[in-house]
Amino acid sequence: MSIEHNTVDHRVSATDDTVHNRWNNALEPIRTIESGDVVEFECRDATNGQIEPDSTVADLADLDVEQVHTLTGPLAVEGAQPGDVLQVDVLELEHQGWGYTLVLPGEAGLGLLPEEFPEPAIHVWEFEDGAAQFVDGGASEMQREDGIEVPIHPFPGTVGVAPAEEGDHDTQPPRSVGGNLDIKQLTAGSTLYLPVAVEDALFSIGDCHAAQGDGEVCISAIEAPMSVTCRLSVRSEMDLERPQFETGGPFTPTGRDEPAFGTTGVGDDLHEAARDAVRGMVDHLHDERGLAREQAYILCSAAVDLKINQIVNAPNWTVSAYLPESIFPEERRRSHDR
Amino acid sequence: MSIEHNTVDHRVSATDDTVHNRWNNALEPIRTIESGDVVEFECRDATNGQIEPDSTVADLADLDVEQVHTLTGPLAVEGAQPGDVLQVDVLELEHQGWGYTLVLPGEAGLGLLPEEFPEPAIHVWEFEDGAAQFVDGGASEMQREDGIEVPIHPFPGTVGVAPAEEGDHDTQPPRSVGGNLDIKQLTAGSTLYLPVAVEDALFSIGDCHAAQGDGEVCISAIEAPMSVTCRLSVRSEMDLERPQFETGGPFTPTGRDEPAFGTTGVGDDLHEAARDAVRGMVDHLHDERGLAREQAYILCSAAVDLKINQIVNAPNWTVSAYLPESIFPEERRRSHDR
Repeated sequence: MSIEHNTVDHRVSATDDTVHNRWNNALEPIRTIESGDVVEFECRDATNGQIEPDSTVADLADLDVEQVHTLTGPLAVEGAQPGDVLQVDVLELEHQGWGYTLVLPGEAGLGLLPEEFPEPAIHVWEFEDGAAQFVDGGASEMQREDGIEVPIHPFPGTVGVAPAEEGDHDTQPPRSVGGNLDIKQLTAGSTLYLPVAVEDALFSIGDCHAAQGDGEVCISAIEAPMSVTCRLSVRSEMDLERPQFETGGPFTPTGRDEPAFGTTGVGDDLHEAARDAVRGMVDHLHDERGLAREQAYILCSAAVDLKINQIVNAPNWTVSAYLPESIFPEERRRSHDR
Repeated sequence: MSIEHNTVDHRVSATDDTVHNRWNNALEPIRTIESGDVVEFECRDATNGQIEPDSTVADLADLDVEQVHTLTGPLAVEGAQPGDVLQVDVLELEHQGWGYTLVLPGEAGLGLLPEEFPEPAIHVWEFEDGAAQFVDGGASEMQREDGIEVPIHPFPGTVGVAPAEEGDHDTQPPRSVGGNLDIKQLTAGSTLYLPVAVEDALFSIGDCHAAQGDGEVCISAIEAPMSVTCRLSVRSEMDLERPQFETGGPFTPTGRDEPAFGTTGVGDDLHEAARDAVRGMVDHLHDERGLAREQAYILCSAAVDLKINQIVNAPNWTVSAYLPESIFPEERRRSHDR
């Protein structure tokens, strides 16, 4: 995916001197740019290169989670002041042909269903013809599932500026200054607006995803090393409390209305309703589509969308999970007698 | 919207003898049908006809909310047993050319932002050329907003079967047996699967919506009297804990990827994050698009979609609200220098 742009003003490689994995407004900027400059950022995957195409679940035991999420930056944007807005035009993303999805519950119980999925898992995806193939990638220990393809719509999972508060801040939670937002519609052609909290903004980016379901339920998307090209512009006349954005999608994998299978969660707690919807989808993928439960959880994270259907019919809200049929080969799509 | 179907086996008019507004498994069925029958239900609007095209906010003071939601039914489906599933193929919906959206916070503080919108309001929509026109409909007291059009994708907001528990049950909250699910993708061509809890299922339907944003944030969608044609089939081999469905959308108003403007909520409570995203959208529609705040809230409920971007980056989740640009005339769509 790329949007026409005239020139790249700066290229930033990902070296041990240009990456970091904590938000901190005392970090020395790796470069200072002018407002309106176009920058190509080389971004390592979220684990700082610890996962490779032939990684297996055995390798996860040695994974140093302290290195997550490796971000490239920070860049100082000249003239940006607290109270300004940094406009980030996402212009282009380039992947390297592969990615992976991790289940990594850990001691913190990460992911939406850590009780059901207490063990680590990995699935390696190969990218071909604009889609991630749900097949054994090298040493993935998961059962081969021929034919499932998740179209690639790359975006940066983490994009933000330094927070006003001093000290180190974990990159896992997003904040009002952005960060690990995981908005899957921040594809090339999109624009993100970030509230600037410190002088020169101190912008960093990384944690790129080739595709993701709204929700990212298993804790990771289709994670991949990529380069990202953005234009960064200071918008002093704007005033924002939290990020806003403009996007053209994707709203479905094919880019148009298409058949989907939905499971629901109904209850007085949105989080529990979301869990019920995802539990229903995991059961469905296992019982009706023949996926191992772990595969199902991973596929939910990569391709199933969580929507809030209604948040007003007190005391019970509706949250649904949407599985796009288009990711299956035609003969495996769900149909019924009508 | 209609799906080809050969015949209608039953037509059920909405009379005072065929409507009800509480779920109760002791209600006498108005008719008994066979599995596989196609039924056309006449459905009053959610208020039982208390709102008319020339209703004004003054009329809301006299609104008898005890009559909400008027449902047509219940129908006994022969052979349905607890533990079975009732398959509801939504075949056709026909509106009457108009609808309305209410803000009705009341004593219960209904709606997502009752503190910000404590006063009742009404907007009447005229349906023309497949879209609801955001103009003064008769006596709506709201400022005229020429040119905003919300495409019509009609669906039944409330569709369900009787609960197992005895007694009257409010129609406002949905339950595991369905009810006020407000899943806007249950348009013609969709199929809903409902867990059957009592003998003969006791199916009711109503509360039709011409369009709705995912979230239905102001407490109502584009409410409209309609007729709904469904095929009802008992699926004894299926087993469900809560509703599931198949749909072809809509996932955007135009049925394809299209520009949207997004606001975010970021925090450790999904409900609060959703409120922040909607607050941001109301501010945006007011500050940047010239809508009165009340209009903005109503437009959010009718056309803005809430998505859970990520629910795993503890402790902060991301919820975003998506405003489709296509509902505005071209000259009023948002653009920026790129």
